[in-house]
Amino acid sequence: MLKMKKVNEAMIKDVFTTSPEEEVVFAFEKLMKYKISALPVIDKSGEMVGIVTATDLGHNLVLDNYKLGTKIDNVMVKDVVSVAPENSLSDVVSLMNEGTSEGSIVNQLPVLKDNKLVGIISDGDIIKALK
Amino acid sequence: MLKMKKVNEAMIKDVFTTSPEEEVVFAFEKLMKYKISALPVIDKSGEMVGIVTATDLGHNLVLDNYKLGTKIDNVMVKDVVSVAPENSLSDVVSLMNEGTSEGSIVNQLPVLKDNKLVGIISDGDIIKALK
Repeated sequence: MLKMKKVNEAMIKDVFTTSPEEEVVFAFEKLMKYKISALPVIDKSGEMVGIVTATDLGHNLVLDNYKLGTKIDNVMVKDVVSVAPENSLSDVVSLMNEGTSEGSIVNQLPVLKDNKLVGIISDGDIIKALK
Repeated sequence: MLKMKKVNEAMIKDVFTTSPEEEVVFAFEKLMKYKISALPVIDKSGEMVGIVTATDLGHNLVLDNYKLGTKIDNVMVKDVVSVAPENSLSDVVSLMNEGTSEGSIVNQLPVLKDNKLVGIISDGDIIKALK
């Protein structure tokens, strides 16, 4: 079933984003306020240059690992695993399992078309597609 | 494949928990520190009486919805959807899709055996099992 279904049928199209210049504290507040788990980072030219997750920002904020005024640019993951709208959900599952260290998965993958962000797909979206 | 695999083959067995008397701020710090997304709430008799999620606590803390000193007892979800170790992962997917309002899923299900908490299973664990 996951082989038959495409990313653009299961992805979220209204994606919250952040910018390299935003302070981590405000990005974290946005994540919490809107109950989202990751924010792609978009630069002034409209290109995706990284991603930040609620898990990582929350972890480092609670442990006081960031200096006051730390910006997204300094903490974002730059090597982002992404998919295309025409990829299958089966591809997504493989990428989620490959893209990280042992014992965990990548929970969200940005969806890029012609180098532009057009959506985001999460582990929860896969569970919904399996319904 | 999900029909063949059982919950006890995919669940996390070392579960972080909280108590009804813990303050929400400290429970949230624990969630962030250990990068976990939900804490089952265990009372003094060892029974699971609720669950709290990082998403909900974070949302309400950021919006300043809790009075200072608010305890887990006052904010936990008491009607918890749970599974048994011998349930299939297919059952888990169904329960994750049924147990909540439209457009979202339950991301974590506590695993109970003889009314005792023996594990927790998340949407991410399903993705790992699909590998």
